[in-house]
Amino acid sequence: MKTSSVGIVTPQRARFDEPLALACGRVLTAYELVYETYGTLNSARSNAVLVCHALSGHHHAAGYHSAEDRKPGWWDECIGPGKPIDTNHFFVVSLNNLGGCHGSTGPTSINPATGAPWGPDFPSLRVRDWVHSQARLADRLGIDCWAAVVGGSLGGMQAMRWALLYPTRLRHCVVIASAMRLSAQNIAFNEIARQAIQADPGFADGHYLARNTVPAKGLALARMVGHITYLSDDAMADKFGRDLRSGSLELGGEEPAEFQVQSYLRYQGNQFSGSFDANTYILMTQALDFFDLAREYGDDPVAAFREASCAFLVLSFSTDWRFSPSRSREIVDALIAADRPVTYAEIEANEGHDAFLMPIPRYLALFGAYMQRVRGAC
Amino acid sequence: MKTSSVGIVTPQRARFDEPLALACGRVLTAYELVYETYGTLNSARSNAVLVCHALSGHHHAAGYHSAEDRKPGWWDECIGPGKPIDTNHFFVVSLNNLGGCHGSTGPTSINPATGAPWGPDFPSLRVRDWVHSQARLADRLGIDCWAAVVGGSLGGMQAMRWALLYPTRLRHCVVIASAMRLSAQNIAFNEIARQAIQADPGFADGHYLARNTVPAKGLALARMVGHITYLSDDAMADKFGRDLRSGSLELGGEEPAEFQVQSYLRYQGNQFSGSFDANTYILMTQALDFFDLAREYGDDPVAAFREASCAFLVLSFSTDWRFSPSRSREIVDALIAADRPVTYAEIEANEGHDAFLMPIPRYLALFGAYMQRVRGAC
Repeated sequence: MKTSSVGIVTPQRARFDEPLALACGRVLTAYELVYETYGTLNSARSNAVLVCHALSGHHHAAGYHSAEDRKPGWWDECIGPGKPIDTNHFFVVSLNNLGGCHGSTGPTSINPATGAPWGPDFPSLRVRDWVHSQARLADRLGIDCWAAVVGGSLGGMQAMRWALLYPTRLRHCVVIASAMRLSAQNIAFNEIARQAIQADPGFADGHYLARNTVPAKGLALARMVGHITYLSDDAMADKFGRDLRSGSLELGGEEPAEFQVQSYLRYQGNQFSGSFDANTYILMTQALDFFDLAREYGDDPVAAFREASCAFLVLSFSTDWRFSPSRSREIVDALIAADRPVTYAEIEANEGHDAFLMPIPRYLALFGAYMQRVRGAC
Repeated sequence: MKTSSVGIVTPQRARFDEPLALACGRVLTAYELVYETYGTLNSARSNAVLVCHALSGHHHAAGYHSAEDRKPGWWDECIGPGKPIDTNHFFVVSLNNLGGCHGSTGPTSINPATGAPWGPDFPSLRVRDWVHSQARLADRLGIDCWAAVVGGSLGGMQAMRWALLYPTRLRHCVVIASAMRLSAQNIAFNEIARQAIQADPGFADGHYLARNTVPAKGLALARMVGHITYLSDDAMADKFGRDLRSGSLELGGEEPAEFQVQSYLRYQGNQFSGSFDANTYILMTQALDFFDLAREYGDDPVAAFREASCAFLVLSFSTDWRFSPSRSREIVDALIAADRPVTYAEIEANEGHDAFLMPIPRYLALFGAYMQRVRGAC
């Protein structure tokens, strides 16, 4: 365990019995959210930061669940004492989103109407549904206004939607490696991921829990597709190049050659398919595809951001081709045109989209400096 | 049928009974190649151009098979009277490579040793095996020296290998949208395609012909992955944007939204899986992965190209991210360092890797101008 860690943390659970009307028109009569907190809420309740997770994330963003835990939470590089989101000063809330598979109500939960797991019948979700459910969690925790709502990728979409839906409930919005909506290419990669899952006979039209099957290969394939797109071409070249894991490329080589990158991808895919729910993956990718910040503002992002009253930090990474810097600049341009305060930086980084999870010095320095400004006003 | 077409063409078949020793160490005792020719061989036999096909290509590169044919051959934009490879002047040979599934000996052919289809037992092939088998076809046709060997993508790899293995048998080498070897990212996409095929229960470890099954979904997925990587982000944005095919993104929309790009990908995948052989797809992607022009020259492409004695044309396309212009520039740099004559152009084109099949005016003009120089020496 690192000395700069938040240490051992224990997930908490909040149950909400007030029905939640969803964007799809359906209603969840009750739901639970699993969350963690790091740091201490000050007496003014003004130092709370909400962390929104990305596609495959969850509530465990920082620290360890036990002394034996080998790996910390997924954003431990950015959350902790002395880190960009400094837990000596901030009270950080990180939850597993509705529809998730790490403890919050989702497709693997029991549908009270049937007594069986929801499976594919869990309602379709949009980013705004997460925001509304997060607002209720804020109510429960007594947080009227977040010092900042922060997220990378799909998490950044939640942060932006917060700024439009609850303009008086956040002072800062931090949007990292995100976009106002996906491109056709993004949607295409998500579609392949979904089809890989759905083509697996173990998927059983989503009823795999009831049938006691697992769409393991399909989910592994889906993850592999995602994984390639989160890395840059350069990062993969640096990490693997054309190194062989086994066999030989010599003429007459008897054992067929296998590249390191092949076995790495298979390993990543299999790890993921053992720990993630296929219906949740489909649900999350659809929420990504459907997100369109300015759709109901006449497709005018300037009009959309005029709803906001917070300040913005927007960050992008030079080799991120899934959510490229040009997508972030579109956000920045709209914010400027809407007269909103915005700070923008494009970080030079080799790691592609995954850079937002990495300890890149300039990234941590810029992010930390901005959060110090946020802190000053708490 | 366009007036500038080579018209109706009839595939021909050549049988080779002399055993072919393959790079993998195995031997094919006999094989057949299906090919087409366009134009007329001159009396000096000096005007022959070999066209090498890419991953999913075949012998039918130009013209029509019947008056009812709706679509011409895959490279009809570049081959025909008055086109870059002008059939008023050149005698063009286009074959289905060994291991293919359009008539040449490959996994769907009968293994004479067993009387059953080869299936997954067909020998693994390298680019050099294709070159050797093409050289025998040249012998059969009485072509001692090609005016040019031409190919895009995997076809360009064959053209480069020709220049090293048979330096006296070609005067020009045309390498379009290609690379001296794949990057880790390229290999990763191929790996996903193969795994999608292999995960399909219909694949039956490659014995689907014997079992009377078809890995249709797996092959469709493989094609979809490839297809996305052949298009640029911009091209997909222009073609589909976020247009919906059905449903609505309105709040409370009852029918789930489906994007145009989703149904397009599915259509492309299904079309392909009905017309291509899964074992061939695996074999071809492995030949791509294993190709490494300079491996046996101490990983020194300059040393490799010193074997060549022909002139080179290298072309790349600005938005091609599967075989990016920087990969072509590596070829050009090595050729210059090896003192080989080389002409290079990077064509501005929105179409990504697929641009090499498209009628982009500057591309056709540059390619045609170079081929006129080739013609002058015939």
